[in-house]
Amino acid sequence: MSSTFGKIFSVTTWGESHGPAVGAVLDGCPAGLPITEEMIQAELNRRRPGQGKVTTARNEKDQVKILSGVFEGKTTGTPISFVVFNEDQHSNDYAEIAKWYRPGHADLCYDLKYGFRDYRGGGRSSARETIGRVAAGAVAKAFLKTVAGTEFLSWVASVGNVDCPSLDLNALTLDQIEASPVRCPNEEASAKMEAAILDAKSNGDSIGGTVSLYVKNVPASLGEPVFDRLDALLAQAMLSIPACKGFEIGSGFAAARMHGSEHNDEIYFDGTAYRTRTNNAGGSLGGISNGEPIYCRMAFKPTATISQLQKTAGRGQENGELAAKGRHDPCVAVRAPVIVESMAALVLADLYLQQKRNCLE
Amino acid sequence: MSSTFGKIFSVTTWGESHGPAVGAVLDGCPAGLPITEEMIQAELNRRRPGQGKVTTARNEKDQVKILSGVFEGKTTGTPISFVVFNEDQHSNDYAEIAKWYRPGHADLCYDLKYGFRDYRGGGRSSARETIGRVAAGAVAKAFLKTVAGTEFLSWVASVGNVDCPSLDLNALTLDQIEASPVRCPNEEASAKMEAAILDAKSNGDSIGGTVSLYVKNVPASLGEPVFDRLDALLAQAMLSIPACKGFEIGSGFAAARMHGSEHNDEIYFDGTAYRTRTNNAGGSLGGISNGEPIYCRMAFKPTATISQLQKTAGRGQENGELAAKGRHDPCVAVRAPVIVESMAALVLADLYLQQKRNCLE
Amino acid sequence: MSSTFGKIFSVTTWGESHGPAVGAVLDGCPAGLPITEEMIQAELNRRRPGQGKVTTARNEKDQVKILSGVFEGKTTGTPISFVVFNEDQHSNDYAEIAKWYRPGHADLCYDLKYGFRDYRGGGRSSARETIGRVAAGAVAKAFLKTVAGTEFLSWVASVGNVDCPSLDLNALTLDQIEASPVRCPNEEASAKMEAAILDAKSNGDSIGGTVSLYVKNVPASLGEPVFDRLDALLAQAMLSIPACKGFEIGSGFAAARMHGSEHNDEIYFDGTAYRTRTNNAGGSLGGISNGEPIYCRMAFKPTATISQLQKTAGRGQENGELAAKGRHDPCVAVRAPVIVESMAALVLADLYLQQKRNCLE
Amino acid sequence: MSSTFGKIFSVTTWGESHGPAVGAVLDGCPAGLPITEEMIQAELNRRRPGQGKVTTARNEKDQVKILSGVFEGKTTGTPISFVVFNEDQHSNDYAEIAKWYRPGHADLCYDLKYGFRDYRGGGRSSARETIGRVAAGAVAKAFLKTVAGTEFLSWVASVGNVDCPSLDLNALTLDQIEASPVRCPNEEASAKMEAAILDAKSNGDSIGGTVSLYVKNVPASLGEPVFDRLDALLAQAMLSIPACKGFEIGSGFAAARMHGSEHNDEIYFDGTAYRTRTNNAGGSLGGISNGEPIYCRMAFKPTATISQLQKTAGRGQENGELAAKGRHDPCVAVRAPVIVESMAALVLADLYLQQKRNCLE
Repeated sequence: MSSTFGKIFSVTTWGESHGPAVGAVLDGCPAGLPITEEMIQAELNRRRPGQGKVTTARNEKDQVKILSGVFEGKTTGTPISFVVFNEDQHSNDYAEIAKWYRPGHADLCYDLKYGFRDYRGGGRSSARETIGRVAAGAVAKAFLKTVAGTEFLSWVASVGNVDCPSLDLNALTLDQIEASPVRCPNEEASAKMEAAILDAKSNGDSIGGTVSLYVKNVPASLGEPVFDRLDALLAQAMLSIPACKGFEIGSGFAAARMHGSEHNDEIYFDGTAYRTRTNNAGGSLGGISNGEPIYCRMAFKPTATISQLQKTAGRGQENGELAAKGRHDPCVAVRAPVIVESMAALVLADLYLQQKRNCLE
Repeated sequence: MSSTFGKIFSVTTWGESHGPAVGAVLDGCPAGLPITEEMIQAELNRRRPGQGKVTTARNEKDQVKILSGVFEGKTTGTPISFVVFNEDQHSNDYAEIAKWYRPGHADLCYDLKYGFRDYRGGGRSSARETIGRVAAGAVAKAFLKTVAGTEFLSWVASVGNVDCPSLDLNALTLDQIEASPVRCPNEEASAKMEAAILDAKSNGDSIGGTVSLYVKNVPASLGEPVFDRLDALLAQAMLSIPACKGFEIGSGFAAARMHGSEHNDEIYFDGTAYRTRTNNAGGSLGGISNGEPIYCRMAFKPTATISQLQKTAGRGQENGELAAKGRHDPCVAVRAPVIVESMAALVLADLYLQQKRNCLE
Repeated sequence: MSSTFGKIFSVTTWGESHGPAVGAVLDGCPAGLPITEEMIQAELNRRRPGQGKVTTARNEKDQVKILSGVFEGKTTGTPISFVVFNEDQHSNDYAEIAKWYRPGHADLCYDLKYGFRDYRGGGRSSARETIGRVAAGAVAKAFLKTVAGTEFLSWVASVGNVDCPSLDLNALTLDQIEASPVRCPNEEASAKMEAAILDAKSNGDSIGGTVSLYVKNVPASLGEPVFDRLDALLAQAMLSIPACKGFEIGSGFAAARMHGSEHNDEIYFDGTAYRTRTNNAGGSLGGISNGEPIYCRMAFKPTATISQLQKTAGRGQENGELAAKGRHDPCVAVRAPVIVESMAALVLADLYLQQKRNCLE
Repeated sequence: MSSTFGKIFSVTTWGESHGPAVGAVLDGCPAGLPITEEMIQAELNRRRPGQGKVTTARNEKDQVKILSGVFEGKTTGTPISFVVFNEDQHSNDYAEIAKWYRPGHADLCYDLKYGFRDYRGGGRSSARETIGRVAAGAVAKAFLKTVAGTEFLSWVASVGNVDCPSLDLNALTLDQIEASPVRCPNEEASAKMEAAILDAKSNGDSIGGTVSLYVKNVPASLGEPVFDRLDALLAQAMLSIPACKGFEIGSGFAAARMHGSEHNDEIYFDGTAYRTRTNNAGGSLGGISNGEPIYCRMAFKPTATISQLQKTAGRGQENGELAAKGRHDPCVAVRAPVIVESMAALVLADLYLQQKRNCLE
């Protein structure tokens, strides 16, 4: 297990889907930052299930408590401990899952690796593990907002074969995104995506999707080459989210089809700062932020747990079939945006704190 | 700077394109592994420039020396130090680059971050930095070959709009790949890719490409959730390679267009081990290897440095134009495969050493 | 803040003396280890205050809860989260401490470093922070007991000028130690130490002491030169305990007065293993365990907070006087042994997990 | 092996006593710091053997080369690679050592741990490994001198039973220390120490000693509780030096004999800063620097390798005798001061870079 992320601004998450609680410890947050449980809760509410027809019916309030690190409404520089007690567990739903390995799921790998697992649910591979990330990410966002005015936006860019059309990214708002039940700010696409998800659900199936991230007011100079490049850490952060199978930044895979003369972003000095006229780089050059918005896109596979009958093998090495019960999101991409934002904020806050003092003053 | 990668099997690279030398220190390699300079050299020879019409004319032997950690042909468990002295430097080629920032290049970001840079070349953002990775990666490969029979294959899957057709991955060999001047094992595609690269070169331009990786005989249980998931570390490793803009594993971005019933890989017990009939997962589930081959794909942007005239800004905040001189690869993807293999081997060797003792015996 | 210790078997502690709770997250513990709350509680009971005349009157049950990582009585390989809610807080005792910096205490440094602190108590510099260490250490001890039969003994070796006479270390038991109110297994010395502590207490003063550690059945080969030497990590671990000012291993400072011919421990092969006839090395040579018992000694300064009137300065840069109220241990050494054992166990468990696979099999 | 030290300002050392070379890579040094090979060489010259009657006869120039990270006399922010080629190796001296384990030496532990070692010398447990530390430490010192005027002094405080009398630490200079052949600034004690060392040498024996460290102009607020406390990291750093068996800071072990009223350092505000009238704390409270000088003391055991006949066991599990040949320092403490200073500087530089941004501005 490696449950800690970040070198200076460092989060450690803990907890399983069917244990008593989940949570996180955030170490290295500078002192003096105003933080309230309400701020954290607002972010967790964006993540929690039970929000509509397109997410799991598991309904939990996911009420967060801050147990340390905040005094009189401000961070003290000491570790911030978050806890959310688990509530709505239907362990009995999981009887069959204890026996048969769900195709596409981590069950088998956990059993192989640890010889043992909490068979009542996904354990650490459950999306509930991300609660701790979102709580810590909320602090990271507040920190970056304070020191640099940084803003994070993430939305569903496609579900199955329904694509969100091109957006005016600088005009895009969180409200536009959150107004959609599938978190796609284009109304027409949103409706089609919702239909695709409900169609999959009614077939006892699930469906994949992509999620985009756009970060404005990113300080320049973030990223520690050669291995902790900004884009490399973002890639690690995103692929560490359950069900994420791909990451691309800026022009991404499209860059591989382009010529340099087309791809290179023209640089100019605007009187105050160096800027680029286009942003094929997605805000990162040589693994260091150039001050342009970070723009990247992540692929999420369809939820592994489906109720259709599937061939699979069991714990006793027998081959057989499973129709999984339980309450699962038909499309995990829909709940991913706040997790994506949180992971990006954790990367940027850590790099921001590392970047100081690279030059003698 | 963060020049160290890996927790137990850990490499630290150093050196700039125009300094006296480049190299790496590999710490944490188990004792008793047979290693020779010839083995390392063979891998470096796959990486070095000057190999044909489609790579840079910079011609260096890249002769590696092992300065520590090997005694009587075997590793001693102590740090292994590699050094390659730089030879064929034409610093005068870089006069204009000292003044004007190359669009799409890291020059500007290094100047912003460090206030200062070795303007004679790409410094640490140069592909020469990867020499240390390949040297250490050669040891990682030898280690994995010894303990698990693991084999790495990487090839160019596309250049511009030329795609390599579907391959029989289990029949594919390194010789087939290396026989192609562009490292594409399909002869027809290889010829078209070479033409596309030469066409770009003759226009003073460059071109992007994708690189695939296929790893056979991967031990199950590698990967440390939740943050050091196998796929997350592979993503970090790949995005840390210069010019890489995207990563996908298994079905990757295509997974986002699929249903669960289509994407889930059927599990069966074959009498000896759990296997899957398909490999949409790409060898990783829940961030842990399942014993199936690792299969992933990386996007490389076109080389930033081109000789066509481009608008850009200079160190003195002036706006102007640059036609970059110097000897640069028109398509970096062509030299990427051995780097890709090396980074994957470094990830796997480190996770292999971490994975031991997850269970009580 | 750096609240995480250990590379593989890794503990993160959190919590302040006057916040809602304190706790720890233990990551990297192998799966399958039997663990109960009772085991953890037994260790915490050795640490908690309110146990007699010689410790602070602050009386807390320090009831531990395990919130994750254990299923059906065994570790699952996932992070283990411990929480202890704070109960007996008399924040009003601390009014003066909010204003005046206690000489010898961390108050001033926290204010200088973080610009801000929870003035109700010692915050993170409070001994309550060590609760998390003891909880995690209990698991580390159980792990080492299971895999190697390792046993930890720690006791008070001196208080002020009262020294515990030489002990037969192999006959020493935990019961003998815990039977003493000051945790000194020699009855006569114990009585004198108790008198010295009560004398200091009645004078509104405090007193220092030394604590010894003896670890039996230490596996050979633990320690990762050159920087993570066994003795170096033990030294870090011990000096990280509040009030510890010195560390020595084996003959320690006495070694500096010896000749090599006197100090070198004669090696012999006893038919099964290499052993030494003496143990001036204290179980560590070249930073690697040699299989002999680990023997080391730590100096603890007298408690900083005393009720005698002392000159000092205040938050507003004024100079003045403070007679500190509050309930404080007159001799911190008395409660240190279980903390010392816990830190040693955390070091050894981590090195044990790292040491595997140094050699090819 | 764990050959890397430091989180941000991070050194990795490599090399064995009888391999081709030794060296280090220093990553994370801020850009713009003036560095020359001469500066590094001056420090290495203080460390190198062959300087007089009291050190080993092994005579090496230890000529350092900087292979990366410095451009036009200044650091570039990229990794700085140092190399020193080994010269004066008499491998034939070591024939017997290949067979018999030296009592008090790491030979046995390396064989047990790695199953294999370079039997020609001490390998990584040789003091030659510290060359890399001194090279990197020279940069750390230059950095701290530049940003804070920090100065490091280290000297031999005792050899065997000869103690250096109390010194006026603020008047002490490096020249006074280096003028003594044993690095003791008190002339009378120096002469007695030299005699004690030569006496041991003539008996084919060795002798222990203590080394003190005094650091002036230490910035306040350095240290990252709870585990990376300043004093804890210094303890780790010092115990990582070969032959170091003990560490104490401030009043150290003497503190354990004191009362709080005697030990607590009175705080006052001097118009500019908070100061203390005494320095029992040794510059660190709660693991954070308080701006007073750091003062600590280290115990070094007598050199393990002696030419007197000693009983021991051999690689083939036989018991026998060894009279070790080879050229070894009779008192390692004499060459320790520059290593002690270097390790302290590496700790402080790293904490200095971490400490920034603990508070919002």
